[in-house]
Amino acid sequence: MQPELQTMAEQRTELSSLGEFGLIDKLSEGLELVNESSQLGIGDDAAVISADDDNFGLLSSDMLLEGVHFDLSYVPLQHLGYKSIAVNVSDIAAMNGKPEQITVSLGLSNRFSIEAVEAIYKGMKAAAKDYQVDIVGGDTTTSHSGLVISISVYGKVAKEKVAYRKGAKEKDILCATGDLGAAFLGLQVLEREKQTFLANPNMQPQLDKYKYIVQRQLKPAARMDIIHELNEKDVVPTSMIDISDGLASECMHISRNSGLNVAIYEDKLPIDKQTYDTAVEFNLDPITAVLNGGEDYELLFTIKQEDHAKLDTHPDIHFIGYMHKEQVGNVLITKNGNQVPLKAQGWDHLGQK
Amino acid sequence: MQPELQTMAEQRTELSSLGEFGLIDKLSEGLELVNESSQLGIGDDAAVISADDDNFGLLSSDMLLEGVHFDLSYVPLQHLGYKSIAVNVSDIAAMNGKPEQITVSLGLSNRFSIEAVEAIYKGMKAAAKDYQVDIVGGDTTTSHSGLVISISVYGKVAKEKVAYRKGAKEKDILCATGDLGAAFLGLQVLEREKQTFLANPNMQPQLDKYKYIVQRQLKPAARMDIIHELNEKDVVPTSMIDISDGLASECMHISRNSGLNVAIYEDKLPIDKQTYDTAVEFNLDPITAVLNGGEDYELLFTIKQEDHAKLDTHPDIHFIGYMHKEQVGNVLITKNGNQVPLKAQGWDHLGQK
Repeated sequence: MQPELQTMAEQRTELSSLGEFGLIDKLSEGLELVNESSQLGIGDDAAVISADDDNFGLLSSDMLLEGVHFDLSYVPLQHLGYKSIAVNVSDIAAMNGKPEQITVSLGLSNRFSIEAVEAIYKGMKAAAKDYQVDIVGGDTTTSHSGLVISISVYGKVAKEKVAYRKGAKEKDILCATGDLGAAFLGLQVLEREKQTFLANPNMQPQLDKYKYIVQRQLKPAARMDIIHELNEKDVVPTSMIDISDGLASECMHISRNSGLNVAIYEDKLPIDKQTYDTAVEFNLDPITAVLNGGEDYELLFTIKQEDHAKLDTHPDIHFIGYMHKEQVGNVLITKNGNQVPLKAQGWDHLGQK
Repeated sequence: MQPELQTMAEQRTELSSLGEFGLIDKLSEGLELVNESSQLGIGDDAAVISADDDNFGLLSSDMLLEGVHFDLSYVPLQHLGYKSIAVNVSDIAAMNGKPEQITVSLGLSNRFSIEAVEAIYKGMKAAAKDYQVDIVGGDTTTSHSGLVISISVYGKVAKEKVAYRKGAKEKDILCATGDLGAAFLGLQVLEREKQTFLANPNMQPQLDKYKYIVQRQLKPAARMDIIHELNEKDVVPTSMIDISDGLASECMHISRNSGLNVAIYEDKLPIDKQTYDTAVEFNLDPITAVLNGGEDYELLFTIKQEDHAKLDTHPDIHFIGYMHKEQVGNVLITKNGNQVPLKAQGWDHLGQK
């Protein structure tokens, strides 16, 4: 036998010592792109591939694992199917692109009946319809452990409109869509109700007053509406990323990739009243939830100052800060005008375990 | 709580009642393609997508799960990485295409050290180099259970050269590459040695005389060499599929998709001496291993009769049968001239559990 896992133990460095982004950096070392058609590899929301004279192709993949990304004791299967498509569409949106094809790979244990799989697929089909994307392939297999959902999405973007993380310029305005922290607090509510239910199965969950934030956790939307509106208003973001790991973490990505610093205003951060109230109820700082709560799948992007007027009246685009190269680094400007360093404590799917 | 899995139990149909292909058929019901760029959805080795004026894009995904597709007690991590890329490349080869980009999603438990993940990646990089394909993205996450590898591949094919499963015509010649049944018998050897080792850990595995077939199981090759040669000789297969589930099963796909029947000659089936001898040693019928053993990742394709001369002297392309529409159906013509119905007992990753 070839006990690879054991021999490896001679030199054993724990995954958690690197974290998710550190591991990706390490694995990406020495990866060269040999095909002319590979315009951009690892390091943005999607890879960029030559398509036709006018467009680039975009390719991205995401994997959702039971017990890590979702808990089937409170996640309805149909919503899970919907969400798995939406989070992939969001990666294409973050490149200012339009998703067109999706492949779906499912690992299923015999715990799942055909009816259960159909429920997942019903959600996927609903999302495919909402985002006008075609499910064109995939793989279905037995899993001996939990449910595995792996999705890849292919999309297109006009060459002159592709938005990378790296394109922000000094004095560009930083914009965030929707509101933030809601999905994170929705998760806290669902986890609390689960514990209550486990302690006393006769207790019915109290979710009515948390309807909005629970919905944001269970069935997030990809902001393709924003992409279409930016296109209509002829605004091309100078940089963009989707907010999956938390606002602070995404700010860091734009900062690092663009070689500039970010300043964001505490009093400009968009937060829904239900998110705010629930944070207070849970003894959490609402601003921390906004900065570090993951899974909102809103968009963070920068625009040139001259484009500000075109978006000024948009109800769902918030001007939260700007790009600079002051030595102070990435900062949060508090309500009373203090600058405090911006720290990312985003979701790390390797480090947290 | 929303006990979806329990409520579903009210009407519970077991996955095994449908099998993998039945489930895929069921889930594909009502899937409409809304984007003009979606040339072909589910049902072939890869989806076909509009690319530029001369080429189609090809998109395919495969998922490998620990305990289902591989056993880490005898699969070296580096070979596993190599194989996971090769099997995806094989799907693009089966469309007569060339792979260009790959995304890799990994689900890792804390059982894995960084060194172990690097071993997987080393194999992936070696395969990427061999097949001239770029690793451009993916996802890395914690898994609470086994190792999960999900890969998607994007490739290109000249529009007039794309090979579907459906294109075979009456009297076309059926061709198979390489030899068959080897990977299946390699697996039998590895499983036997594992049992021996578990019974007596002091026993060293006896693999020398099985080197070829074990290699075929652990590190299969995608036949991109054949694709390049067909291209050089200006032969466009009228239909094609890769042999992942077993020759008989793949014959059925070409038959069903092309609306014709297959006849294959027992004495034309390519089998390596080591495969044959090992089948006999295991009291297995060598022809059954060739017909139903999976994971060889050779190619099965049809050509027009007039192209026969162009491939006649190729040492690794075997003319194993032909397409017909006789009422007798899909048949194996035995050495003594009898026609027996061809039955597929290929690997069904849902039904077999």
